[in-house]
This record gives sequence, C-alpha cells and structure tokens, in this order.
Amino acid sequence: MCHNPEWGGKTMSVYLHDIPLPEAQQRLIQALEEVGLESVLGVEEIPLDERALGRVLAEPVWARLSSPHYHASAMDGFALRAEATAGASPTRPVILQVGEQAVYVDTGDPLPDWANAVVPIENVEALDEQDIPAADARHPLKIRLREALPPWTHVRPMGEDIVATELVLPAGHTLRAVDLGAIAASGHTHVRVSRPPRVAILPTGTELVPVGQPVKRGDIIEYNSLVLAAQVRSWGGEAVRFPITPDDFEQICQRVQQAADMTDLVLLNAGSSAGSEDFSARAVERLGTLLVHGVAVRPGHPVIMGLIRRSQGGWTPIIGVPGYPVSAALTGEIFVEPLLARWLGRRPAEPLEIEAQITRKVTSPAGDDDYMRVVVGKVGNRVLAAPLSRGAGVITSLVRADGIVILPRGVQGLEAGAPVRVRLYRSPAEVEQTIFAIGSHDLTLDLLAQALSAHQRRLVSANVGSLGGLVALRRGEAHLAGAHLLDPQTGEFNIPYIRQYLPDTPVTLVEWVGRIQGLLVCKGNPLNIRGLEDLVRAGVRFINRQRGAGTRILLDYHLERLGIDPAKIQGYDQEEYTHLAVAAAVASGRADCGLGVMAAAQALDLDFIPLFTERYQLVIPTVYYESDLLAPLRVLMQDENFRRSVQGLPGYTVENMGQVVAQLPQ
Amino acid sequence: MCHNPEWGGKTMSVYLHDIPLPEAQQRLIQALEEVGLESVLGVEEIPLDERALGRVLAEPVWARLSSPHYHASAMDGFALRAEATAGASPTRPVILQVGEQAVYVDTGDPLPDWANAVVPIENVEALDEQDIPAADARHPLKIRLREALPPWTHVRPMGEDIVATELVLPAGHTLRAVDLGAIAASGHTHVRVSRPPRVAILPTGTELVPVGQPVKRGDIIEYNSLVLAAQVRSWGGEAVRFPITPDDFEQICQRVQQAADMTDLVLLNAGSSAGSEDFSARAVERLGTLLVHGVAVRPGHPVIMGLIRRSQGGWTPIIGVPGYPVSAALTGEIFVEPLLARWLGRRPAEPLEIEAQITRKVTSPAGDDDYMRVVVGKVGNRVLAAPLSRGAGVITSLVRADGIVILPRGVQGLEAGAPVRVRLYRSPAEVEQTIFAIGSHDLTLDLLAQALSAHQRRLVSANVGSLGGLVALRRGEAHLAGAHLLDPQTGEFNIPYIRQYLPDTPVTLVEWVGRIQGLLVCKGNPLNIRGLEDLVRAGVRFINRQRGAGTRILLDYHLERLGIDPAKIQGYDQEEYTHLAVAAAVASGRADCGLGVMAAAQALDLDFIPLFTERYQLVIPTVYYESDLLAPLRVLMQDENFRRSVQGLPGYTVENMGQVVAQLPQ
Repeated sequence: MCHNPEWGGKTMSVYLHDIPLPEAQQRLIQALEEVGLESVLGVEEIPLDERALGRVLAEPVWARLSSPHYHASAMDGFALRAEATAGASPTRPVILQVGEQAVYVDTGDPLPDWANAVVPIENVEALDEQDIPAADARHPLKIRLREALPPWTHVRPMGEDIVATELVLPAGHTLRAVDLGAIAASGHTHVRVSRPPRVAILPTGTELVPVGQPVKRGDIIEYNSLVLAAQVRSWGGEAVRFPITPDDFEQICQRVQQAADMTDLVLLNAGSSAGSEDFSARAVERLGTLLVHGVAVRPGHPVIMGLIRRSQGGWTPIIGVPGYPVSAALTGEIFVEPLLARWLGRRPAEPLEIEAQITRKVTSPAGDDDYMRVVVGKVGNRVLAAPLSRGAGVITSLVRADGIVILPRGVQGLEAGAPVRVRLYRSPAEVEQTIFAIGSHDLTLDLLAQALSAHQRRLVSANVGSLGGLVALRRGEAHLAGAHLLDPQTGEFNIPYIRQYLPDTPVTLVEWVGRIQGLLVCKGNPLNIRGLEDLVRAGVRFINRQRGAGTRILLDYHLERLGIDPAKIQGYDQEEYTHLAVAAAVASGRADCGLGVMAAAQALDLDFIPLFTERYQLVIPTVYYESDLLAPLRVLMQDENFRRSVQGLPGYTVENMGQVVAQLPQ
Repeated sequence: MCHNPEWGGKTMSVYLHDIPLPEAQQRLIQALEEVGLESVLGVEEIPLDERALGRVLAEPVWARLSSPHYHASAMDGFALRAEATAGASPTRPVILQVGEQAVYVDTGDPLPDWANAVVPIENVEALDEQDIPAADARHPLKIRLREALPPWTHVRPMGEDIVATELVLPAGHTLRAVDLGAIAASGHTHVRVSRPPRVAILPTGTELVPVGQPVKRGDIIEYNSLVLAAQVRSWGGEAVRFPITPDDFEQICQRVQQAADMTDLVLLNAGSSAGSEDFSARAVERLGTLLVHGVAVRPGHPVIMGLIRRSQGGWTPIIGVPGYPVSAALTGEIFVEPLLARWLGRRPAEPLEIEAQITRKVTSPAGDDDYMRVVVGKVGNRVLAAPLSRGAGVITSLVRADGIVILPRGVQGLEAGAPVRVRLYRSPAEVEQTIFAIGSHDLTLDLLAQALSAHQRRLVSANVGSLGGLVALRRGEAHLAGAHLLDPQTGEFNIPYIRQYLPDTPVTLVEWVGRIQGLLVCKGNPLNIRGLEDLVRAGVRFINRQRGAGTRILLDYHLERLGIDPAKIQGYDQEEYTHLAVAAAVASGRADCGLGVMAAAQALDLDFIPLFTERYQLVIPTVYYESDLLAPLRVLMQDENFRRSVQGLPGYTVENMGQVVAQLPQ
C-alpha cells in the first residue's frame, strides 16, 4: 500500500520527511499545471446586484456605454448658447428669451442640441412681463445674466466619466461597492466572475465529537472543520463540511474519494502525521499521487499534499492538514489561501507588515520556517512584539495574536530587542490603541479588557508576576503593571519595590482592588487542609506560582514567618503563571492545593481556605497615566457599573479603586 | 409644509444651509440618543458555524469549558510516571513494563490518572521477550529509555489553552475564522451577536431607469441604490432596495413612510438638494423631524438627516443622500458606515493612512471638508498622490482611487509637493506594485493595464500629453511616459525632445507601437472632410487636443507645412485630453471632426480619414527600465499573446515593440 520507499517499507515505521516551504509549494503548483488546474476553474455570469460584492472578475470589463451618454446639465439652471452671453457684465446685463434662447434644465437633464452651456438658476434674475421678478423661477419669460459664460460651462460632456470601449476594471479585480456602480454606468447588467472553488473538509479521528455534544475525558471537540470552513468562506471559496470519519483506513479512503469526486479541493484534517492512526498519506497513495509529506514549517510541519484521481476522470488536489488547531489554521493560511486566490484569479492575501522589536529572547528550530504569534503594541515610541504561547494546541494564541513573526529557516532564535517584521492581523490603528499590561495576573483584568473594548481600547495582558511587571516597566515594555508585592519589613505593598526597581521612572501608583488570597483545594477538602502548615504533610501535593509572582512572595513571607522549609513541600518547584492555572491544576487532580484568589477557586468549583487580604495596585508610569491612551481606564475606575462588576467577583473589594496611592519618586 | 423658517418661506426658494461635518454627526447622534437608538439594536443567538463569520459579538464570550478539559498527551508515545525514569542515561537505560508502568497513547489521548509524563515513541526502544525489538512498536512488552524525563514532559495540562470562566473574546469583536474555533473549544455551541441593521434604499427621480433597461437621451441609469446596497452589505447591514419612485411628493412621502415602518434606517437617494424636484427635505419635515440639511463636505454637501415617525410608534432615522454617484458613495462612507458600526457594536472602519506628496497644485473650497480622490504610487523613494477628477459625477474617480485626501475646512488648497495623508482604499503592498505612467494617451495602455494586472502590477496612467510626460519624468513623478513627439527639423520622434527636457536623466527609449493618426468624423462623413485643408471651411467645428499633446504637435506641424492659420479653425481652442474624449465629442455632435487614432474612431463608430503614421514610444528612466517593478512590462513586450491583442486594435503595428531605440544621454 505504501509505494514510496522514502516513507519506509513498514507501515508503522513510516515517518514524514520535511521539505522547505517554497519547494512544497512549487511541487503542488507543478502538479496542478500538469493536470491543468493551475488557474481560474471556471467563469460564471451573475446579475449585477449586491451579491456580486467580493466576487472576482474573470474577464476585464470594457465600457459598452459612455457615461454620461449625452451632454448633461451639471446644475439646475438654464441651458443656453454661451455665445449669447458674450459681453454680459454687472453693469451691462444680457436678457435672453426663455423658450428660444434659454430652457430650464434640472441637474442631469440632457442639453438641447443647440445649447452649449448652463447658467445655474441662482445666477440669473428670472423675469416676467415688464421685467418684474417671475412668480415661478423655473418658468419665467426672460432671464437676465450679468456674467458671460465660456462654452461648456456647467455641462457634463458625454463620456466625462466613461467613454465606451474604455477599460473599466481589469480581470482579477475583487468587486467593491463602487465598482458595481461603474460597471452599471458602463452599460452592463451582468458580470463574468470566477467560479468559487468548492472545498471539502473532512475531519477524521475516533476521539472527535461534534460541537454541541457532551464531552467526556479523552473526547476532543471537533472545531478544526469549522475554522477551515470559515477560512475557505472568507477567502471566497465554498466549504462543504463532511461529518467526522473515525480512524478507519477504508472509511477514510471512501470519504476522500467521495469528496474528491464532488469538489475542487479536499482538506483531510489530521491523520497527517506518522502515528499509528495517521492514515492520510496512505489514503492519498492509494487513491492518487502523494506529492509532499512534511513541510519544514512550525507549527504544522506534518502537511500532506497530493492529487486524488476522480472517479469521473481528472484530478482533485488534497491537502492533509495537521490536527493541532494552530497548525490547521496556519496550514489554511499558508497553503489553502494562495491556492484559492489562484483559482479565483485574484491576488493572494498580502498582510500588512510593520517593524517591531521583540520583547524577549526566543529560540527557533533552525530547520523550519517558524510562525510565531505575537501581540503588538506601541509603548512610547517603540512598537513592541511580545511572543505568545508557541504551543500548536493553543488556539487562543491565534485568537489573541495581533500578527505573525516568521523566523525563517536557518535562524535559531532572536535576542530580546531584535527588530522583526510582523504580518499584522489587525489594523495599525488598533495597534495604536493597545494598552500593554505586563505584570501580575488578576481575574479583574479580564473584566477590564471587556470594559475597555467598549472605549476603543484593547487591553493586552501578559502574566509575568508582579516583579516581572516592574522589570517590564523599567525596560519600557508596558503601559502599566498590576502588582501586589508585600514588603516583609514594612508590611507595605509595592512602594519599596518600585523604589528599588524603578528609581528613576516617574510612576503613579493607583489603588485597584483588595483581594483575599488563600488555599485552593478540591471540593470537600478531602485532605482536610487548613493552613500553610499542612503543606508539608505527606501526601499533600502543592502547585506553586512562579518566582517573582506576588503570590509567591506572599507564600515565602508566610512560610518564613512560620518557619516552614519550602524544600519539604512536595510540588514547591512546580510552577504555574496564573491563578486560574493553579486552580486548573487542583481541579484536574494534578495537585492537591495551591495558593491563589477566591475567584479562581469559585471559577473551577473548588473549595477555598481564606488566609490573607492583600492590595492589588496598578503601577503606571506617569506619562502614560496622564495619556489619552489610558483616559478610558481613568474613567472606568470611577464608573459605578464597572466597579459593581468587579465587586461581583468573590473575594474582591473596590472601595479605593482609582485612588492615587503615591507619585514616585517623591 | 415647510415649517423651518431657516429653509425659507417659499418652496421654490428654499436653499440648504451647510453646517460643519462634526456638528452634523453630533446632531444625528444626539437625536438618536433621545429616541434610544444610539447603540446595538438587538441581539441574536446563532449557531456556531461558518455563517457566524463577520458577525459582531453582542456579549463577551466567557469560557464554559477548559481546553484541553483533561491532561492530554502532546505526542504519540508512552505515558508513564516521570519518577520511574530517574537516573536513566545512555549508558544506564531504564526498562519499564508496558501495562503497569507505561501505556501507549496517541497525541490528544488523556493521560492515565497515575501518569505524569509522556515519552515520544521515537525516543524509546520497544522490546519483546528476551529484549528483542518488538514487532508492533505500539504494543511491546517493555520499553527501554536512555533519558530521564521531568514531570509533565509532553503533556498538555488541562486548561493549557483555555481555563473555564476566562474571557475568550470581548463584546464588539468581529468574528474571524479562528475565533469560531476558540469559542467552540471553550464549550459554546451558539454565539450571541448583534442583529444586523436593516437599511431601506429608496431611489427617486423621474429620469432614472433601472439597470438593464434601454436608455435614451436624458435617461440616467439608476445605480446609486446598487452601490449603497453593496456598501450596507459590506458593512454588516441588510439592504432593502426599493423600486424607483418618480419625482412626486406624495408618492415619495408614502414610500418613505413605508420604508421607515419596516427598517432601521432609510436612505433616500437624491432630491436632497434645493432644486425644483428636490422633495426630500419637505418629505422629512412632513413625516418627522428634519435635523440637518446641508453638510460642509465636498462632494456631497446637500446631505439631509432626520427622524421619521413610525406608524407603529417610535422613530427611524433617515439620510437624504445626494444624487451624484461620488457624493452618494462618500455619504455612505461618512455617515452610514459609522452609524452601522454603532448599531452593530463594532469599531467604525479605520482606513489605513500613509504619508504622500501631492503631485500638483490643487484648490479647495475653504468652507468645506474636501474629499479628494487620488491615485498613489511609489516612484523612487517618494510616495506620490496624484489627484483624480474632482467631479461628483465621475464614479470612475472612486473606482480608480487608491485613497482619499481630506482637505479640511479652512484650507484653500495645496502647492505641488505638499505632504498629505492619504486614507488608503488599497493595501500598501498594492501601492508598492503600482507603475505610474504619465504622458501621452494611447488605447493600448488599457490593454497593458489589463495584462499587467495578471503579473501583480497595477498600471496607473495619467494623460497629460507627451511633453507633460517628459516633465513628469524630470520631476520624478512617473516610472514611464508614452510619447510620440515629432521633431519638425529632423522628422525624428522623441529623441530631440528627451535631450531638451531630460538632459541629465539616464533614460531608455523603447519602441511601443506604430499607429495611424487621422481625422475622426461622423459616420458617413456628412461634411465630406478629406484633409486638414477642410478644417477652415465654414461650418466645420473642430475639437482639438491639449497643448503639449503629441497629436497637437503633429497637427501644428502639418498646419504650418500647409500654411493653414489655426486661428481660422473653429474649435481650435476647444481641448480634450484623450483620443477617446475627442471621439466622444464628435460622436455627440459637439464637434464635426478631430485628430486622433483609428482605434478611437472605431470605438465610437465614427469614420476615419487616415493621414499620418507615427511612432509611439515609451520613455523610461533606465533605473526603472531595469527594475523589478517593470520586469513584467519587459516580459509582455516580447509576449506573442500580448502583441497579438495590441495588433488586434485597428491602426496599430507592433513589429518593433520592446526594441530599445536609444539609451540617453549617449
């Protein structure tokens, strides 16, 4: 079944072989050229109405009619011969007889054959008998002019807009609203556009369940087909979603054949790797020709490309799309979009690119083109790109991404501050309206993000802990940092740390929320945990926050006070970056307890043992505190509705929200 | 009927009163606030499928489920306890019993409760009895590892992507393909989105005929409703197009009432000015409240805004849209788009802006915000914005526009070279791929534009005549100029002029086409015109080309040779800028003859009297001739298909196309 020796002789030991991206694209195009599928698939003639919007012209539009198709008046006024006004002046007016020498015309009316100019109605005196002002300004007996007109004044000559036979729009143009007007004006009632490619989307995998069905452990909600279908649709294709096919080679082959027979492109989702249930490559080999198995891109390298022989003759290309959601979506962007563009006859999507500086050191596999998702914001005069999760399974990294940085093959990484080009997913205007919050995580930041979005601001928050936030402010990489750093000496929050980490930066320290920290334990508290003393008990597995997190400092402070040796706490070295991640670790059974806020416990239905109250404040460089960018934040902190929504989270108090605690350095 | 004294007491003398744009927008918003129509009109719950694309979230999406919702293997391999691999090394491997200590898992499979790490299948030796390699790598008896694993290696912990209760997407977000995936992953099957506003579009005007009906003199093809409907659709609304209503006040009132009763917004097209058949303002006054009549924007100032009282109670806003197509489309952009954005709860469109230099002096009415359409291209290192026709009737000026320059109120004009901000309609990538051709007009440039568009290049041509083209090259404002300048002394084309006008610029002169110039006359040549001698005959009205045009130089050369005094030619002072415009002048009866190319005569079904053959050449600064930007031009000039298409135009020869005539200065 497996004819290509390159993939190995034994089914179980086949492994894909990555080739560079341009080579993979080239192989596909070449194969499509060989079977005559490299350009527009077909032409449709459709009526000229608003449904033509977004369609791509398959042929140029040449004007059939001129527009205007006659000499038209450009004003409401009187058509006349310019020669008849010769010599008119304020002191020596000319009087013309209406009917013989002048005729009233509305804007757009055709000029009488004998006329060659229009005088606007407001520039004449309309006269009746005895030269008294006319009762009806449009139908006087005479008009008096006090200015001479050059010929063709206030006339739209025939063809002013469009001359018959002119090119109105070239083939390959994607129709916009105004284009439809110009096409109509040039005498067309229909447009000839490229036929939208039909794309079959075949999700496969025994572990998949459709959206809307209850999920149990091990089930994976099948949403790649949704994302791929929406991508196809947004790129001008028609998506045909097939039901989930289980991991059964014969069933998969049958479905692929059926899909290939009825569409222009098959996207076979998952099974494209080389695992035990990865049947895609074998299916392509059985039903046609395997062109590529493995492309040197991350994420998404186990891409398959091939051609399926149609039952009715001819070929249908197939792309084996990797299963991880980020890989699947990027495979769409990298391979499917350009192919649809080719078949539609339009230009491929060209994302806007901007220059930015990467905020932290990143590494990259040297053999691959590495598609790194980043958030982008402008802090001061620098445009910054902060890398998001690199995991191929983290679809929120694509949702949150403002753009992609491609680390090309041969590049093993970048130092912090290195210049990069970002392919933007958002408009530069949105980037300008982005507030970068780097620091301690708090659930109220989600509420703030939601509230700010109604004020044309986007809050992008990176969770690096309170100290990390101060460091980010020092580096000029954030507009604000949430912090709740307890000073063991003074019992004060944040100020001593700001003095130490930001000695030279004028900052405004603003009260945000008071919140209760405590231990998150399983529902019913089966291990009967009551306080930090219990963490050293045998069989109690702790999940910690990362070094530099305010919660971690709080823990260490109290452990020291209580004389507890952290080395004796099982799991002290296991670190998570957010309260919710700690809660998730407990909820999943990976740990028995962790320190965090009450709201996180409630979110995942855990029990909560309250231990300490603390002050969570916003550290804002004063230049940003006073900026227009942050104006909506200042407004929201005083907004009763917003405060109520924060107060609604368990364990939070807002009575001092917005109060300026200190201006530093004093 | 007309209650507002500001519009004048007598129906015929009412005239609109322009107010500044921000004031007009403010009046509308305030009125909408008073009647409770200032924000999202309603919420719909729709299933999570690809039709949700482009819809706007009416509420934030909070995660219901975590993703993954269990600890999942991130690789195909064996789940195990990390502790069991402690001390493993290449020389001291560890062997684990499959079943008890290790279990095969595919990517995405849940980890057994007792496991806390996964070793990829390719990193183990699968063993059977007597430690021989296992026949089935997934089901061996034992596995041998030569490396210790930290806990949670190759595991996607529960909540890695999404933790239940987290904010997935804020309200007001426009859904993209990946968003649908994240919403599905977070446990939703439906989304709550804003209801699309319904917009009624009412074309009015006795002179209008629908697209597709034969037009006679005075008829205007009604396509504004098509453009407005397409705009509404592209901005997320639903358009309801009404049939054309004639200029009858009662009928218009009836239709407006009907439209207001069934939609959220009425666009009443035309009749918004103050002419004799401009009923819109009066209709609004009768049926509700007139808020604004006249906004200080050009084109498009006679805008009307008001509220119509619904029969069933409540109010529907109405916008009276001016009739000129450019005015109508810009009214859509300026007033309708922001209103729809508000009703959908999304951000208004924010066009990308770039800096450019205006190519020529422009004037502007000081009292208005003036929306000037421009084409944009990059010539050398300068981004240039060349103004297009300012006529409100010229829809092709919007179709061809790469963007808009707003000359704000108070600005009376700009000098050539002044910096401007352009609101782009195209991507900056397209701007980079724009070839600016300024110079003599030739019909073959349309064919070239069409052919170049298939090579990812956009040809933008401005017709300023051959000499104007050389001047543009000298100013660095074009990549190439078409020229056919006959030197009376030498009989040579172009070279003497290039030496004079571009003494210091290295240029490559390339043969383009040979073409026949002659007199364009009415079908049947009723005045029996045979040559230039006939132009001085009484009753023969000539239409000329502008000074500096090659055709004009040709004419003057031959007139002088023949001893004909131009002052004796009627219409010698009437100038047009293109061959087709000359042809249109003859076809319409505005003139009896003009000098031009044969193809222009044929295009408008005129007779043609061939007089001279001439050489039309391309003058290209050598730095551009050799550039990547112009590479497709060099290819096309040698392309048989392209040459054939040019040869197909009457009166053209292409045998020397692409030949380099000279490199200057020599």
